[in-house]
Amino acid sequence: MRSYDSASQKRRAGPCAPQPAGPGELRRAPLFAGVDEATLSRLSADARIESLQDGDSLFHQGAVVTDLAFVLSGYVKLLRLSSSGRQTLIGIRSNGEMIGEAPTDANEIHTLSAEAVGATRALKLPAARFARLLKESPSLCAAVMQDSKESIARLVGEVESLKSQNADQRLAHFLLGLCPPGEDRCRFRLPYDKRLIAARLGVKQETLSRAFAKLRAHGVRTETRNVHVESVLHLADQCDRLGRPPRLSLGRRKIETQCDAA
Amino acid sequence: MRSYDSASQKRRAGPCAPQPAGPGELRRAPLFAGVDEATLSRLSADARIESLQDGDSLFHQGAVVTDLAFVLSGYVKLLRLSSSGRQTLIGIRSNGEMIGEAPTDANEIHTLSAEAVGATRALKLPAARFARLLKESPSLCAAVMQDSKESIARLVGEVESLKSQNADQRLAHFLLGLCPPGEDRCRFRLPYDKRLIAARLGVKQETLSRAFAKLRAHGVRTETRNVHVESVLHLADQCDRLGRPPRLSLGRRKIETQCDAA
Repeated sequence: MRSYDSASQKRRAGPCAPQPAGPGELRRAPLFAGVDEATLSRLSADARIESLQDGDSLFHQGAVVTDLAFVLSGYVKLLRLSSSGRQTLIGIRSNGEMIGEAPTDANEIHTLSAEAVGATRALKLPAARFARLLKESPSLCAAVMQDSKESIARLVGEVESLKSQNADQRLAHFLLGLCPPGEDRCRFRLPYDKRLIAARLGVKQETLSRAFAKLRAHGVRTETRNVHVESVLHLADQCDRLGRPPRLSLGRRKIETQCDAA
Repeated sequence: MRSYDSASQKRRAGPCAPQPAGPGELRRAPLFAGVDEATLSRLSADARIESLQDGDSLFHQGAVVTDLAFVLSGYVKLLRLSSSGRQTLIGIRSNGEMIGEAPTDANEIHTLSAEAVGATRALKLPAARFARLLKESPSLCAAVMQDSKESIARLVGEVESLKSQNADQRLAHFLLGLCPPGEDRCRFRLPYDKRLIAARLGVKQETLSRAFAKLRAHGVRTETRNVHVESVLHLADQCDRLGRPPRLSLGRRKIETQCDAA
């Protein structure tokens, strides 16, 4: 009986047991890059690092915001659940990015759900402490306002892409964003599976497969998750052309509404 | 020569001549609802009201932000211009809403262009004064953070709609948002023309026409810009059903990527 208990405790307290985090770990999140040392030190009290496995939930839409979380390694998907039960992928976070929004008041509610994609490490800070320090620290306030601007810019880019680019263009832009900087011919690995890439780009899986096939003519070869790009410059140059119907020259400088034509 | 000059000056200074604005006009913008009197009074120095005609530009993407603008009456469309010259409608502002984003620093650049839709009145405040007061007034800071949250929520809703709703559902939601509250059977006028509604919903004009035709079966009748809804409750109830293919039951609780199927 005793050995069973101890094994059970070990399982529960195993890879998911939170570890304490200090100002050093907080500095890895871009949000805190310009925040003063004193604020960072106060923020890091009760901060912790949590290890998650694929599919583990970080928080649920509609729940009270108890923590502010950041991705230390791995990926986190942000999902919106409609009243009819439909789930829509809103975004994917990685590399020190904030997961969700900064709480500015007590008892805020999560507007999205967050779930780990593969093995993921997350940094969590108590939301109440963050909201309190936000009222006291101008540098933290400026950081949150800057982060909101970046979120808005990212979402505007997303709306632009969904409204004006077809699947081929969206995939080409996505792949260009993954190419290592400074190399024209390059190889890299897709960060997550193609089902998630399709949801990220707002296209069906079969449409994504067709887009991958089409990009072969533009020097993009894929083998499972490995991608080889013949020329980044050529691919970037083709992005605009991928949006044009084969024999029809599209009118420019008009409001484009290609989403339903993708 | 003299009369020509004076006529020319009159034309230039005609309906578009800015009028001074006070704290009362500022209070009409929801952003300023919770801002203290002293800050509002300082903000309103050099505030002015401008009258614009259909198509008049408020600002251009890439230009330095010199003013913070709000819609007092009418509509303003926010446009993104791509490097290839393609214009995408990002959103439409009205009823005291901010046009663009609050400047938090000097020399910020507009990330979108803004243009009046029909006769429009806009309130403008100098951006430099606003950014300076933002650093001094906690209530203005809180207001800007709250406004950013609302912008993010609106854009997330937009991404959700573009990724998971077909044209029929998007139109039904758009019309439901225009129904006068508290009435089940109602009449109203479309706020702007169908070309702009198509761009707003991210669908082609012919797709929008088909969606309007389809909604007739659900009690929505349109005559030019006049809309009659038989039952708001019935229409709301049908929204989810409009997303399902006629004879196929769609799997739920999976990530939906219907955008390219609309």
